[in-house]
Parts: sequence; C-alpha cells; structure tokens
Amino acid sequence: VRAVVLNGPHDVAVERIDDPTLTGDDGIIVAVDRTAICGSDLHYYEGHMGHTAGIRLGHEFLGEVVEAGPEVRSLRRGDRVFVSGVVGCGRCGPCAHGDPVRCDVGWQAFGTTPALPGGQAELVAVPAADAYARTVPEGLTTEQAVLLTDVLPTAHIGVTRADVRPGSTVAVVGLGPVGTLAVELALLFGAARVLAIDVVPERLSNAARLGAEPIDATAGDVVAQVRDRTAGKGAPCVVEAVGSDATLRDALLMCAVEGTVSVIGVNLNMQFPLPLAVLFSRNITVRTATASVPTTWPALIPLLQAGRLRPDDVFTHRLPLSAAAEAYATFAGRVDGCMKVLLDASA
Amino acid sequence: VRAVVLNGPHDVAVERIDDPTLTGDDGIIVAVDRTAICGSDLHYYEGHMGHTAGIRLGHEFLGEVVEAGPEVRSLRRGDRVFVSGVVGCGRCGPCAHGDPVRCDVGWQAFGTTPALPGGQAELVAVPAADAYARTVPEGLTTEQAVLLTDVLPTAHIGVTRADVRPGSTVAVVGLGPVGTLAVELALLFGAARVLAIDVVPERLSNAARLGAEPIDATAGDVVAQVRDRTAGKGAPCVVEAVGSDATLRDALLMCAVEGTVSVIGVNLNMQFPLPLAVLFSRNITVRTATASVPTTWPALIPLLQAGRLRPDDVFTHRLPLSAAAEAYATFAGRVDGCMKVLLDASA
Amino acid sequence: VRAVVLNGPHDVAVERIDDPTLTGDDGIIVAVDRTAICGSDLHYYEGHMGHTAGIRLGHEFLGEVVEAGPEVRSLRRGDRVFVSGVVGCGRCGPCAHGDPVRCDVGWQAFGTTPALPGGQAELVAVPAADAYARTVPEGLTTEQAVLLTDVLPTAHIGVTRADVRPGSTVAVVGLGPVGTLAVELALLFGAARVLAIDVVPERLSNAARLGAEPIDATAGDVVAQVRDRTAGKGAPCVVEAVGSDATLRDALLMCAVEGTVSVIGVNLNMQFPLPLAVLFSRNITVRTATASVPTTWPALIPLLQAGRLRPDDVFTHRLPLSAAAEAYATFAGRVDGCMKVLLDASA
Amino acid sequence: VRAVVLNGPHDVAVERIDDPTLTGDDGIIVAVDRTAICGSDLHYYEGHMGHTAGIRLGHEFLGEVVEAGPEVRSLRRGDRVFVSGVVGCGRCGPCAHGDPVRCDVGWQAFGTTPALPGGQAELVAVPAADAYARTVPEGLTTEQAVLLTDVLPTAHIGVTRADVRPGSTVAVVGLGPVGTLAVELALLFGAARVLAIDVVPERLSNAARLGAEPIDATAGDVVAQVRDRTAGKGAPCVVEAVGSDATLRDALLMCAVEGTVSVIGVNLNMQFPLPLAVLFSRNITVRTATASVPTTWPALIPLLQAGRLRPDDVFTHRLPLSAAAEAYATFAGRVDGCMKVLLDASA
Repeated sequence: VRAVVLNGPHDVAVERIDDPTLTGDDGIIVAVDRTAICGSDLHYYEGHMGHTAGIRLGHEFLGEVVEAGPEVRSLRRGDRVFVSGVVGCGRCGPCAHGDPVRCDVGWQAFGTTPALPGGQAELVAVPAADAYARTVPEGLTTEQAVLLTDVLPTAHIGVTRADVRPGSTVAVVGLGPVGTLAVELALLFGAARVLAIDVVPERLSNAARLGAEPIDATAGDVVAQVRDRTAGKGAPCVVEAVGSDATLRDALLMCAVEGTVSVIGVNLNMQFPLPLAVLFSRNITVRTATASVPTTWPALIPLLQAGRLRPDDVFTHRLPLSAAAEAYATFAGRVDGCMKVLLDASA
Repeated sequence: VRAVVLNGPHDVAVERIDDPTLTGDDGIIVAVDRTAICGSDLHYYEGHMGHTAGIRLGHEFLGEVVEAGPEVRSLRRGDRVFVSGVVGCGRCGPCAHGDPVRCDVGWQAFGTTPALPGGQAELVAVPAADAYARTVPEGLTTEQAVLLTDVLPTAHIGVTRADVRPGSTVAVVGLGPVGTLAVELALLFGAARVLAIDVVPERLSNAARLGAEPIDATAGDVVAQVRDRTAGKGAPCVVEAVGSDATLRDALLMCAVEGTVSVIGVNLNMQFPLPLAVLFSRNITVRTATASVPTTWPALIPLLQAGRLRPDDVFTHRLPLSAAAEAYATFAGRVDGCMKVLLDASA
Repeated sequence: VRAVVLNGPHDVAVERIDDPTLTGDDGIIVAVDRTAICGSDLHYYEGHMGHTAGIRLGHEFLGEVVEAGPEVRSLRRGDRVFVSGVVGCGRCGPCAHGDPVRCDVGWQAFGTTPALPGGQAELVAVPAADAYARTVPEGLTTEQAVLLTDVLPTAHIGVTRADVRPGSTVAVVGLGPVGTLAVELALLFGAARVLAIDVVPERLSNAARLGAEPIDATAGDVVAQVRDRTAGKGAPCVVEAVGSDATLRDALLMCAVEGTVSVIGVNLNMQFPLPLAVLFSRNITVRTATASVPTTWPALIPLLQAGRLRPDDVFTHRLPLSAAAEAYATFAGRVDGCMKVLLDASA
Repeated sequence: VRAVVLNGPHDVAVERIDDPTLTGDDGIIVAVDRTAICGSDLHYYEGHMGHTAGIRLGHEFLGEVVEAGPEVRSLRRGDRVFVSGVVGCGRCGPCAHGDPVRCDVGWQAFGTTPALPGGQAELVAVPAADAYARTVPEGLTTEQAVLLTDVLPTAHIGVTRADVRPGSTVAVVGLGPVGTLAVELALLFGAARVLAIDVVPERLSNAARLGAEPIDATAGDVVAQVRDRTAGKGAPCVVEAVGSDATLRDALLMCAVEGTVSVIGVNLNMQFPLPLAVLFSRNITVRTATASVPTTWPALIPLLQAGRLRPDDVFTHRLPLSAAAEAYATFAGRVDGCMKVLLDASA
C-alpha cells in the first residue's frame, strides 16, 4: 500500500510500504479514507526536528476498521472510525480516561517516530483502539471527524486552559487552523470580545466574519494595539497559536493582571527568555497544552451534532494522497490562501 | 409626583405621593424614565404575599439622578443610572462586592415593603447608591439597562448555578421573560442543546428561533419528553423558571445523574414535597437563586456592548405609567402575547 | 460456605450457601477475610426497605482473589483486594472512571438485592473487577482498606460536596461512623472550625478529641446553637449524616447564606417537606450523595499511607462472622458504645 | 521620630525623620508597635534593585492608629491595626475587594519607593485605610497579626495557586519563612505529602517536625530526589519560594504531568531561560504571585483563631528598632539560625 514518507527537508513522497500489522491484541488496522496535514507536520517537513528521514507522516485520519485485535471490545471490522492523533498505552488509569498526556507509560503522536507510523497512508496500525479510536458519531461530516483527531481538541484545550468565561475578552495570537478554531470556540463559550491577531488579510477577515475584532500585526505593535482596545488593561485570556518566541513574548505582554496565557503553538525552545518581572507584577498564569484529545470529545461532539460549531471551512484545499508532495508545498507556502489540506487516501 | 400603588388583589392605581427624600447620606433620588413590570410583582398583584395594601410597586427602573447624598462618590446630579432591584446596607464587605444577598444586615427588594418604596413612580429614593446604582454604560440601550436591574442578572445566575459548561445539554422549564433570557444565555455560554419547555406556542416558537429545541408541555409528560430526547438520561443542567410545585417536581425528575437543578422561579412553599429518594439515586444538586444583581454586571455588560446578547425583544408591550392598571392586567393575563411590559414614567 | 442472611426484621443468621460462581468473564471470586456492618445495612435489618427476606447482606469487605475471569487484567489469584461497595457495569465510560453512580446501565450495592449477594460471607462474587476491585495498597491496615469500600468514600464525598475550603466553618450533623469520619476529613481539608452535633456523649467527646467543637443536641435547639456560635450567620458548609427528616430540616436551617448542605445520611422520603422560602432567601445549595467509591481512592489512599488520616478507631467491636446476629444487635442498639463492627469471616 | 533608612548596599541606619502626615482624607497615621524584616527587603539591602538610597524600609507592621482622615469609616484613633504590605488606590472595584494587585491605578508596597515610606519606623502614614488596614482580630497574637501583613498571605496564595487538593503531593522549594509557612499551609489544606527542599539542616528538620519529608539539596540533584520519591512522576504541585534561576529551573523540572508550579520567590529576571519543550511535553502550568494580601484574610484569620495554624515560631530573633543594622546583618547572614526578625519600634 501507499504512504507519505518524509525523506528530508521539504522532501515528501508517496511510497510503497508493507501492509501494517496489528501493534498488539488491543490494536486495529484502519483503511484510511481521509487524512489531513497539520501545522505540526511542518516542523518535520521543514527539518526542525533533527534526524527524521524515513518518518511516515500524519496524525489526523479517518477510515474503516479492516482488522481488530482479539482484545478490542468497542469496535469491529467495518466500523468507520476517527483516531486520536496522540495515544498512550491504553491500559493505565489515565488512558481509561482518554488522557494520553498523563499516560503512565508516556504519550506519542502518530507520524512522528518510526515506532508509530502515520496515517497519511492507505493503511495504518492503531494501538489501544478502545481508548483512542471511536466510531464516527451520527450527524458529523467526514471533515468534522477528521478535525476531532487533533486541531479541534487542541483549540478546545487552548481556550479552556485560557480560563475563558462568559463575558471574557480573549486575544488569539495567530489565525492558522488552530487559532481560527480557537476564535470560533472562544465565541461559542461566551467570550464578549475576541481580539484576533495575524498578518494575513484573509485570515483576519475570516476571523472578523466569525465575530472577532481583527488586529493586523503588520500595522504596528500588537501589544499596544491590544492595550489600546482594552482601556490599557490587556486581555485577561490569551491563546498563543503560532509557536514562535516573538509571538509568545507578545502574548505574555498583552496579558492583563491576573490573566492567563494558554500556549498551543508548539515551541520547543529550551531557553525561551521569560520576562519574569512582568509576570510577577501582574500575577500571570502561563500554560502549555498538548491535547489529551479524547477528553475533549464529550464537549465537542454534541456541539458539532447540534450545528453550533461549524469548523469545516478550515479546509481550503482537497487533494488526492498521490499529490502529497504538492499538498505539503501548498500548505507550507500558504499558496492560494491555503489554510489546511485534506487528502483523499483512496486517490 | 405619581407612583403605582397596590391597593388590593388585582387593584393597582397611579396615585399622588409626596416627593421621596434621601434615605441617608449614601442615597440618591432618581427621576425615573423607564420602569418595567416583573413576574415577581405579580405575586403581590395577585394577592399571594399577605397584607400588602399600600405597597408602592416596582424594582426595575432607570432614570436620572436629581439629588445625591454627601457620601455618594461615584455618581452625581444629572447621571443616567440603572439600579439593582435588590439592595443591601451598602457598607459591609459583601455589599462592597455588590452582593446584597450576603449583606451582613440583610437584603431587600424595591417595591416589596413600605420600607423601600418601588420605582414604578416618577421619583424614587435609592439607598447605598455607590454599591447599587451605576451609570448606563456606553453602547447599551435604555431597555437593556432596565433588564440589568433584575431579569438578566436572574437569568445569568440561574444558568451559572446550573453548572452549564460548553457542550452541555440544558433544560429550561418555563419561557417567560427570565426563562427566555436563560435560553439565550445558555446558548451564549456554549450549551450544545437547550430544551425549552412551555405551554404557550409563541413562547415555544420564540425559543426555537433563538436556537433551542421547543418541548410543548401540552403534548404530554415533559419528563418523558426530556428523557426521550436525551437517550433516557435526562438533562444534566436544569433551570426552573416558573415557580410552581408541579414544574419544580418535573425539573427534579428530568435531571440527569450528577446533574444540577437551578431554581429561579420564586416558590415560597415551606413544605415543598422533595422526592429525596430520586435525588439520592442520582446525586442531584438543587440550588435556589435570588440574584445578587451587581455581581453579574461585569459579565453581562460587555456581552451587551459587543452585541452578543440581544435581550431587548422580551419587551412586547410599552405603555405610559398612567396606564399602569391596564399594564398589570395585560401582563397578568398574557393578553396579546404579552411577555413583558415597559412603562414610560414621563407619560 | 457460610453467609449472613436476612430472614426478616431484626433477624439475621449465618447460613450455608452454595459456593458463588463468577458473574462473568470480568468477575472474580473473593475469599473474604474481614467485612464490616454499615449503617445502611440497618435500613434492611430494621425492615424499612420492603420485602427483603433472603437477602445476603454486606457491602464492605476485603479478602483474597481465589478465582478470576479470563477478561480480568489487573488482578490475579492470590491478590489481596478490597472492593467498592457500589458497582456498575464495568464497561461504560463512567465505569472506566470508577464512577458507578453515572454508569450507563445503573449502579447497585452489594447485599441489597438477590442479584448481587453481599460480602458478609466466606466467599463473594464480584463483577467488573478491573473497575471495582483493587489490591490493598502498601502501608494500609486491613481495617483502613475495609473503610475504603464505603464509609471513608462516603465521608469524603460528603465533605467535598459541602464545598469545604481552607478556613471554612463546617457543621456535621450526626456523629456515627460516617459523620465522625466527615469531621476528621473536614479538619484534614483545612476547615477552621467543625461544629459536631450529636446526642451521644461519647460521640461528642470523640469529635472534640479530633479537634471539633461538640454541640449537644440534647441541650436545646441545634439550629440556635449553631447560629450562636457563628455570630448569627450559620455554617456555610453543612454535612447531614443521619438521614432523618428532622435532622435534614435542622441542617437546612443552620446553613449560612450562599452555603451548601451535603446530605449523606440516606433518606428515601419521596415527600420530604423542603422549606423552599428559606432556601430562596439564602441562596442555599442542597446536594445528596451516593458515593462513587473508586473516584475517592486517589485522594484517600495517599492520605492513609502518609498517616495523615487515621480512621481505624471507628471500629469499636470485632466479632467472628459466626456471631453476626449478636453483631447486628449490638450495632443497631449501640450497645457498649458500639460505633462500628468488624467481622472476621474466617471465624 | 525614628525610621530605618537604607543608605546603600548593606548599609541601613535608624535616623530621625519628620512626623509623617496623612496621605489623604482616606489615610491614617499608625504608631508602630512591632515590625518585621522580610526576605524581599533583602533585595534592597543587598543592592539588587538599582538606585534606592534614602528609601525608608519595611512593609510588615502593626501598631495603633493615632490619626484618621475624615473619610475613614472603619477605624478610629486608638484602634490597634495591622496593614497590608501591598496597597492600591482604595477606591476602585478591585480595591473594594481588597485586591491591590488588580487595582485600576496600580499597586505599590510600603518601603520600596520614596512615594510610600516604610513601616520600620515609629510612625508611618497608611493610605486607603478602609481597604488595607484592619483591627487586630480577637484571639490573635501580635506576631500572628504581623505575619498577616505579607508572609502568611504570600504563602497562602502560593499554596492556593499551586492547585493543592486534599491528597496532593506538594514540593516546596526553599524553607525560609515563606516556604516554611507554605509547608504548614499545604499540610493544613490536606496535602498527603509535602516534600520540603533546602540546604540548611535546621530548616529541614523544622519542616520534618511540621510533618513534611525533608529533601537535602546538598545531597544531590533535587529533581532526581523528588522523582525518586514519587515513582518517577514528580510532584503535581510545586511551590518555588527561593527566587533564583536555578531553583526555579529545578521547580519546573520536578513538576509532574498536568502539574502546577507556583512561584512566590521573587525573581525579576526579564530573560529567565524557560525550558518550553519540557513544559509542552507535560502540560505544565506556571504561575507567579504577588500577594493580594487582604483577599487571604478571610481564610487565614479563622485558622489562626482556631489554633489550627501556628506560625509564630518563624520569628527566631527579636530586637529593638534601634538595633536595625544588626538585625539586617543577622537576617541577611542567617546568623544563629536566623529565620525572621521582629523589631520592637518602641525600643
């Protein structure tokens, strides 16, 4: 079968792989239908993650169960499932709660190590299926279910961990797919105002259309712009969805007294220069978030079913799996206003 | 000046009163512009509250400060203000937090005792003005500010105390003004589904228009209807906004395991027959709420200013103060689909 | 083997039963070592629960696994285990969290129906063992592990659901085993003051020894006594641990404004006369609690291991299983200051 | 009158000053009885805070009101008061809640700028007295009341913001006065285990006496020691009470997955090297805390009155104000096991 393989920086190819086998008695094999490219795949694509040649990419996918191990209880052959992009051992207490980040053994994401090949492929092996795979709920589109594997949960956790309350003012730094979904969720959770910050005009106008106040970072200091719009106080809730040092610094400086900065833009700097004196003078809380994906499903699924959350249009580009190289280049380069790419694994 | 006086059951009249005087150095006199009739006024109008002849009614009002006591710091002559319908002493710690319900001395509502004449009048004396009166914020309509004196805060506290979370299913029992606003707030706070229960077709269709699922109580057992729509589980969040024994019993029985019933429909029964065995088998929480009005303003005002909360159309009828008798009859009888009446105190 | 059987009101006997068999592939058989009598067993013993002749009693027990079904993962033959007194299906999401009360299928307690024979026996069948049985943690006494099956979790949930915070004043109504443990836990969780209410002098002096302020209910109106000791305000946190209408009414009336009454004394009255007007004037929260036993273990076990929680001396009487009839009579009659009885199932 | 003046690094002197005058109509003049030296005074004493010559030191003090401005309501001449070490404008909403850190105008600490001379003096001017000064509650010792001005509130906020729950394992890094009080409070709030880390043997043995597990930082890597004692997981709640880059780094690295690091050791580094990759892999929350002092009094005062919190013995040295130079040298050098110094302003 075919799979997307990373051969080096900016070099992905669709290659033949051996059919995957069950990871264990609690695993399943999924025949992938649709799979998406995530901003965090770009860390690998762009060569920021060290020696990763040969990695089979992809942690956002949906498909049909074609084989199920003997211990799997909740799924069977033929079920249409989506899978958490992050998984744990499946046997410990936290995994029973669907929280891979707390797993006693440790968490891993699909498509980031040789140990757990990714889902941008025709077939993928999924471990701990009872804990981490779920049949697609009635009333959800295929694309919504793909978004439940990572980006919607990440946006949900980012907004939740920013301590957003009804009536809050929320700043969202960065309007890529996760940031845009964070804007939508913050409004859905009762924020009075969402200040949506980016440099791309279409992303700003899209956020405005969702109900946010766009702040154009090319128009000057975003910290000053946020303070101007909040009577000098800053935003009590800040979601950082970029992952650069500069945007994180901005996020910290725009935060109001006793506020919270929730960081979901992945930044693996081991020496980020934290302005502690500012934090002390304002009693700020800083949180990072790797999404414990399944813990968010009980809130997100009913919102999708009720039509209150409509995230589908973060997908701007749809391509066959065979065009993965073009898809990565388009996504990485934001060609044609590309926000997020969905791949059809059958083509 | 003129004021609405309750002379007996179903007997209100506009009468001449002496000009009110300051209640103390921390008080103000307000020349009323608009004032509303509240469902709780009907408890008095219909004679359920014992001997209340001579009471000057009304706890929802807005107007201009025409006199301010020497200790008042935050307001001055000429300010346009709205006033919490419930007030405390103004000097204790809880009053400093704007929480009259916790006041060390005790709370009282305007228009319910001779000690605190109501605001359905041309002039009204307001005690503890720094704690309980506020200038109308920029961007709010007059009608929105009137709704901030009682019904919006009550709906807010009712929804908040029902433990509504993003993704929750919420049942609202009773779609009068407060129930209707509770529907709107529950959706604004991220409820996935709101089951809106009443017997009046217009109220049901109005709730549906807001985004709720209407449940017609004339069509059969509402508990069964709620359970049918929730896979047998019931609703984890229930807001009771009627105040009768029967509706409260329904609210308790439709509540899901570990759920919360928040009671904002005033019911002063000292022997309500509580089905404890049901509560025990389901670990239910029951809360009553008298609104600590000003504590809700920091959340509600930005939502109104941002246009995310649009409560104005709960007012279905607008009449001059001189027509108060007609207004009460219309409201009590739900004549012409009457939901809520606004009185113009200048006419 | 032998088991305690309820033959009628005040009539229990140790009788021969057939060896129990596995309830299913996820079940275990436990050879009981120690088992306790619970206050809720008395509801059956005293004939308050309808037709219950033939019930095999007991939901607090500890012993050795002598057989394990093929699906059981976490336990094996020879393990020394304690078991949640309340169990669910073991397969649904809430059961994965150890929360039988939310179980999709419904919860049941051992020893209360023919469907789930109790643990006051030499052998007992335990369903859903991975979810509801646990090996005895290092550092715990046998008696502490028995207390983890019901009364400590109930006391924990009762105190937690009373919204106890560091610095709180807590009233505990009823100083039986659960109430006494609630006193100990409230102090351990940082209560500044615990007002401990009962009529039995030894129970009052025991609570005083733990650090509480005893209130003798024989000395006059307990509501007045609580208000006298709280500057008229009442207690913001109240734990009702008796289960009578009179004590529940007292608990409600002694509660402070915005306070919480947590009811753990089982009361199955379907028409308890709730004084709603009092609740409305004070914004009181009322909660009932059936213990979702395993959810409390992560907090309780480390407190026991660290020696910070020392509940062992609620056991005042230790008897062989063969003396069950005497044990029940002693417990029911509070003979010789009996607080709680531990039975040795090997004797 | 006399006051302690900082003339340069390691150079404090008791000097004659003019009698202070009221800061405004809402201020008081306090004749100081007792005043303490705080670890944060050392930042000034040791010359880390830039040009501070001439500063009159001290933000922990207690004394008698000798003059009260005409707007002061809650205090009068002759009252014995303690004062929040940090104050705000006294007029805004947050100040009405006793939260100087959120003050609309900004907060300041006594004894840190010429604008707000300190309380290590015979007389001190206190602004916004209704919000920030309080009569000494019945049942408190003088020394307890002095501790309420800063270090107990800081320890309380540090522990609270570490998300300590009953049953938690808490690591406290640094056992100076604030760290030692954090140990005591963490245990009082129900922590199962407190890992208390320092290099000074007496401080470690003192923490052990309070009920903590001492960890000697001179015996090797403290992160490894904490992980060894927690089955490799680290501590879910960490309180950093030193203020150095090295200890903060340790605090972050010893934190468990989904844990919280609460930083109360003042560290004004604007470029602290934050190990973001570690935070991301574990979903850690980091909080800094400047104490909003009066907000902690409602919890701390009843705990002191009930004798459940016994902090007095953090004072190891008592000296007259006239010996301030010796007192600072003793405190800075930890001479004779000095933990904290109390000065008698009458001598």
